[in-house]
Amino acid sequence: MIRVGVIGATGYAGAEIVRILCGHPEITLTILTSRQYAGVNFAGVFPSMEGSVSLLCEELSLDRVCDNADVVFTALPHKMPMELVPELIRRGKKVIDLSADFRFKDAATYETHYQPHTAKDLLEKTVYGLCEINFDKIKDADLVGAPGCYPTSVLLPLVPLLKQGLIDPNSIVADSKSGVSGAGRTLSLAAHFCEANESFKAYKVAEHRHNPEMEEVLSLEAGEPVKITFVPHLVPMSRGILTTIYANPVKDITSADIRECITAFYSGRPFIRICPGNRLPNTMHVRGTNYCDIGFRLDERNHRLILISAIDNLVKGAAGQAVQNMNIMLGLDETAGLKTVPFPV
Amino acid sequence: MIRVGVIGATGYAGAEIVRILCGHPEITLTILTSRQYAGVNFAGVFPSMEGSVSLLCEELSLDRVCDNADVVFTALPHKMPMELVPELIRRGKKVIDLSADFRFKDAATYETHYQPHTAKDLLEKTVYGLCEINFDKIKDADLVGAPGCYPTSVLLPLVPLLKQGLIDPNSIVADSKSGVSGAGRTLSLAAHFCEANESFKAYKVAEHRHNPEMEEVLSLEAGEPVKITFVPHLVPMSRGILTTIYANPVKDITSADIRECITAFYSGRPFIRICPGNRLPNTMHVRGTNYCDIGFRLDERNHRLILISAIDNLVKGAAGQAVQNMNIMLGLDETAGLKTVPFPV
Amino acid sequence: MIRVGVIGATGYAGAEIVRILCGHPEITLTILTSRQYAGVNFAGVFPSMEGSVSLLCEELSLDRVCDNADVVFTALPHKMPMELVPELIRRGKKVIDLSADFRFKDAATYETHYQPHTAKDLLEKTVYGLCEINFDKIKDADLVGAPGCYPTSVLLPLVPLLKQGLIDPNSIVADSKSGVSGAGRTLSLAAHFCEANESFKAYKVAEHRHNPEMEEVLSLEAGEPVKITFVPHLVPMSRGILTTIYANPVKDITSADIRECITAFYSGRPFIRICPGNRLPNTMHVRGTNYCDIGFRLDERNHRLILISAIDNLVKGAAGQAVQNMNIMLGLDETAGLKTVPFPV
Amino acid sequence: MIRVGVIGATGYAGAEIVRILCGHPEITLTILTSRQYAGVNFAGVFPSMEGSVSLLCEELSLDRVCDNADVVFTALPHKMPMELVPELIRRGKKVIDLSADFRFKDAATYETHYQPHTAKDLLEKTVYGLCEINFDKIKDADLVGAPGCYPTSVLLPLVPLLKQGLIDPNSIVADSKSGVSGAGRTLSLAAHFCEANESFKAYKVAEHRHNPEMEEVLSLEAGEPVKITFVPHLVPMSRGILTTIYANPVKDITSADIRECITAFYSGRPFIRICPGNRLPNTMHVRGTNYCDIGFRLDERNHRLILISAIDNLVKGAAGQAVQNMNIMLGLDETAGLKTVPFPV
Repeated sequence: MIRVGVIGATGYAGAEIVRILCGHPEITLTILTSRQYAGVNFAGVFPSMEGSVSLLCEELSLDRVCDNADVVFTALPHKMPMELVPELIRRGKKVIDLSADFRFKDAATYETHYQPHTAKDLLEKTVYGLCEINFDKIKDADLVGAPGCYPTSVLLPLVPLLKQGLIDPNSIVADSKSGVSGAGRTLSLAAHFCEANESFKAYKVAEHRHNPEMEEVLSLEAGEPVKITFVPHLVPMSRGILTTIYANPVKDITSADIRECITAFYSGRPFIRICPGNRLPNTMHVRGTNYCDIGFRLDERNHRLILISAIDNLVKGAAGQAVQNMNIMLGLDETAGLKTVPFPV
Repeated sequence: MIRVGVIGATGYAGAEIVRILCGHPEITLTILTSRQYAGVNFAGVFPSMEGSVSLLCEELSLDRVCDNADVVFTALPHKMPMELVPELIRRGKKVIDLSADFRFKDAATYETHYQPHTAKDLLEKTVYGLCEINFDKIKDADLVGAPGCYPTSVLLPLVPLLKQGLIDPNSIVADSKSGVSGAGRTLSLAAHFCEANESFKAYKVAEHRHNPEMEEVLSLEAGEPVKITFVPHLVPMSRGILTTIYANPVKDITSADIRECITAFYSGRPFIRICPGNRLPNTMHVRGTNYCDIGFRLDERNHRLILISAIDNLVKGAAGQAVQNMNIMLGLDETAGLKTVPFPV
Repeated sequence: MIRVGVIGATGYAGAEIVRILCGHPEITLTILTSRQYAGVNFAGVFPSMEGSVSLLCEELSLDRVCDNADVVFTALPHKMPMELVPELIRRGKKVIDLSADFRFKDAATYETHYQPHTAKDLLEKTVYGLCEINFDKIKDADLVGAPGCYPTSVLLPLVPLLKQGLIDPNSIVADSKSGVSGAGRTLSLAAHFCEANESFKAYKVAEHRHNPEMEEVLSLEAGEPVKITFVPHLVPMSRGILTTIYANPVKDITSADIRECITAFYSGRPFIRICPGNRLPNTMHVRGTNYCDIGFRLDERNHRLILISAIDNLVKGAAGQAVQNMNIMLGLDETAGLKTVPFPV
Repeated sequence: MIRVGVIGATGYAGAEIVRILCGHPEITLTILTSRQYAGVNFAGVFPSMEGSVSLLCEELSLDRVCDNADVVFTALPHKMPMELVPELIRRGKKVIDLSADFRFKDAATYETHYQPHTAKDLLEKTVYGLCEINFDKIKDADLVGAPGCYPTSVLLPLVPLLKQGLIDPNSIVADSKSGVSGAGRTLSLAAHFCEANESFKAYKVAEHRHNPEMEEVLSLEAGEPVKITFVPHLVPMSRGILTTIYANPVKDITSADIRECITAFYSGRPFIRICPGNRLPNTMHVRGTNYCDIGFRLDERNHRLILISAIDNLVKGAAGQAVQNMNIMLGLDETAGLKTVPFPV
């Protein structure tokens, strides 16, 4: 059995990794760390997992982690992973980081939107963990920067069309709507039940830090600079992101062309579901799973393409995709531990 | 006291009209009709209003309505008002209709999206009841077609900018998000709690019947054809619409220009609030009120304007705006009965 | 116009007092204090009230408060009011306190469940502000301790029956269910959207501090010691408390006796609604209002009475009842500022 | 592989059975019937299951069912199973029925609360499928009547204490709170999003049909007549039942006695979790799983025991328990297909 540790196990992403790994047939969870809950039984923090996990949360000790784990997930706020990951890599561990620290190829972009980068030398051999796009690179990677939740929902529907030149790269608007768990478990007024319930709002309009992340990947995939307008919104629900993308298609394109392009691109990918017929994605259809559902409509009257994707922000947008990366890095079945059948409601 | 009747009083819009009129200082509610609940105490259908309303729901009788009311609200499904309103007008009543039947200047557009129009001769003297735009016409009107909920949220932020030529009329995308009460009180799977809760989806993408309604008004106001891409979404909350509009501004425009244009246009209008500073609209801020909050951001990187509006779909998007129309038609204070102070949460 | 100040205006109860007073015809709001938001526009903290309130939040200064207000609401955490209220009373202000500090006749009980009481001499002339029970005493009071939200929902249905000896005082169980706003605006994990949504739990089972408050009042009203088992639960909604009370009725009592007792007791009280016929209370029916709805069933098979009440915890359970107390203290119409017509949904 | 069919596959319980069986290692789903969706792809009705189920919904044909299935779940409204099950049994099928038709030992009780029973001869050899209580009988059963959702939540905490004589059988009150999915997928005003959201109410107070079901089982287990007062409430959430039970313990009992009794009784049962220490059940902790969490407090002041249980009404309260029954009937591992690790949120 492969030994796995989770650093930052008591945030929502960390706890969701623990949840998935509990049911993973090929690995064993060996160590969980949490600053806030060090010394507390993990199941005392998340009583849903009583009987599934019997580990204690520990203070972070790199020695303890390295002695007990072959693979390490770092589910920490930005900046902290930069300080830990180099040492983990040096000691031969496979690392999947869920922060922004290892998502950017271009350190300058990171530094513009976050802070000075203190582990730049690792960036070159780091792989951006968008599994359906970078599968082959992930296979050989020691360090993966797992994509942000919004970027996952924006990139998966766009990449095939941009790669094939079917849409104008200067015309893209992404209007995303996320459940509240995207804000994490840290207390904030925005995540207070009474402030989020019966409430709908946009925030960080055209200035969210996931915007440059999306643009770097899209530009790389399109082979030319791509800029997009990205507007996130907060939905009174716990889990899920629905993204509605507007773009101008190239001339004379048909719905059949769009469908064929996306379908062919994702042929055989177990976690991408192209909505058949007239069906459209709904966050409920992917809740608790690693699926990304993709649908679209061509507004012929206005010559505009509307692409829609749905993911569970904590699974495909965080923990699930992180485990999918681990599976690929270890040469396991990509779907191991991720075969949850979605709930009907 | 002016005597007022509500035809179709037990749908959500009808019941909300009753709620508002109960607190209106200048009118008295005299007659309520409901097919489904004829013979039942109105407060038996909506127990929240026990003690506020003591009327029975009646079967619709035009004679009874005309004998008892000077002003009539028709809150019925499309097609039914066309059959009743001509007679009400003939008998000298003031009518505010909440269906689509009297929203269109162009009967052909109505007929394309709804059904044959059987009261076309009334359309010419009907006023589209968007109060902040058509105030002067409403003053003299006998018949008002109250705007749809989505159009209200889309038109109010757009009209000033289009009229002043500050945005490209061919670049507009409106991405709207509505609470479930927009679907009415009629039972449907989409409105089932378990289907709407923890769920977010788009529907009628670029094919909603409010789209032509918006385009007719925008074209009229802009003085040139305007087409927009409109995509509605369903939010797991009861009340509220947030609309995010994307449009290309004309060259060299600044945030200050945008603010000045909208602020000047709505100067003195009691129900329009332009968000000060960096604040953005939130449906919670307008819940239960007749306000339309408007905010915006200029994405200078992509030369795109993002306009955001928030309304309560049942108030400014339906019953409140209908009462506001009545107030204007009767020469009352526009805000009579509509001065609800919004809840903090 | 009577000048009114609110100390602690930016918690949920404080903000709700501000909301109600904005629409009050006989008073004018003159001063708002808030530790956390001193110097900030109140409408910047609660943007819903933009246009309704133009006051700044201030640091608390007793001199400023006393110079500007004749009546003062203190909406602060327990312990702080004890330190302020004596001085306010000394300077001749009318005070309505929303904390537990002035709810208990017996200082020892307070001290057992809270902390040492530092203003015991005030307790004797303080009135417990349950308006329907203590109306006459409130008229002459300078200081009112407004009841807790749970006690309001438990006491109103029970008092008439206990006073008339229709139920066994040793048989009472109160099972209450509250919306999340009852926990206040202060951040806590329990109030995090993702922890409260799709979640239902009991808490502080038989050890909530509202339990002794209920027992003191019930014993006083019954004229004999009354002990009850009280279990609060958290409901995934923002506002509302529903309380289900179980008690053994005395022998041979009928439903008609129960109804007559409660109806007679509350005859003429504007905010108590006894559910007619088979109707039962629902928090939605009282949302945003000062009503307490009361219903009941007699389980004859088991000789048990089930009493049910519904209130809005922030209105009748806090701010509304506080304003109702103010109205009574000032000799105003008891319902002034509180005539909100409830929403149909 | 054992072939399994589901009759009534498109209600919430039926669909949840399909969901669970999709992930079951030892069986294969062969036939699904649905009156409403006959001819439609099951994944067209529940798009979440696209890729997991490829069966069509069929009109019910007993021949088709019997030819294709060895085990049959009947997830139909009451009365319909009585007409089908006798023939299924005659043809040698194992049947798990989720309606009330086969829950009662005493046909007269069924007939008082439902309708005339047309398959009384089957009742004697039918087993009430409360797995933790009737495990041994279920092993040999051909026909199981799966318990109602509320009874499951009420019986599991009570049975051990009643059997051991630790509580007074005449003192029991069960106050249950259920998510909206308990009302099924059938449209109803009570399940309309806007009627259930921000709403909390009791219904069928002391007259719910699950009440006699509970009493029959409790009386049987206690060996003496047990009557209880049962009051269900509706919670604005999709899934989950929390039941709070009040009962008088026998004299001198301690918390340790209570814990020991329940713990010993359920020793080794994989789906019962006794909350350790001071923890209390929460529906969120069992969401999507077959667990029943049980906690308690002894209110020594009032000599009253408060028992609390939490289940997912669609899993342990319906589909999960049904599959657990199937596993036991077939001699499979009781937990097969039911090992879902619960979500942290």
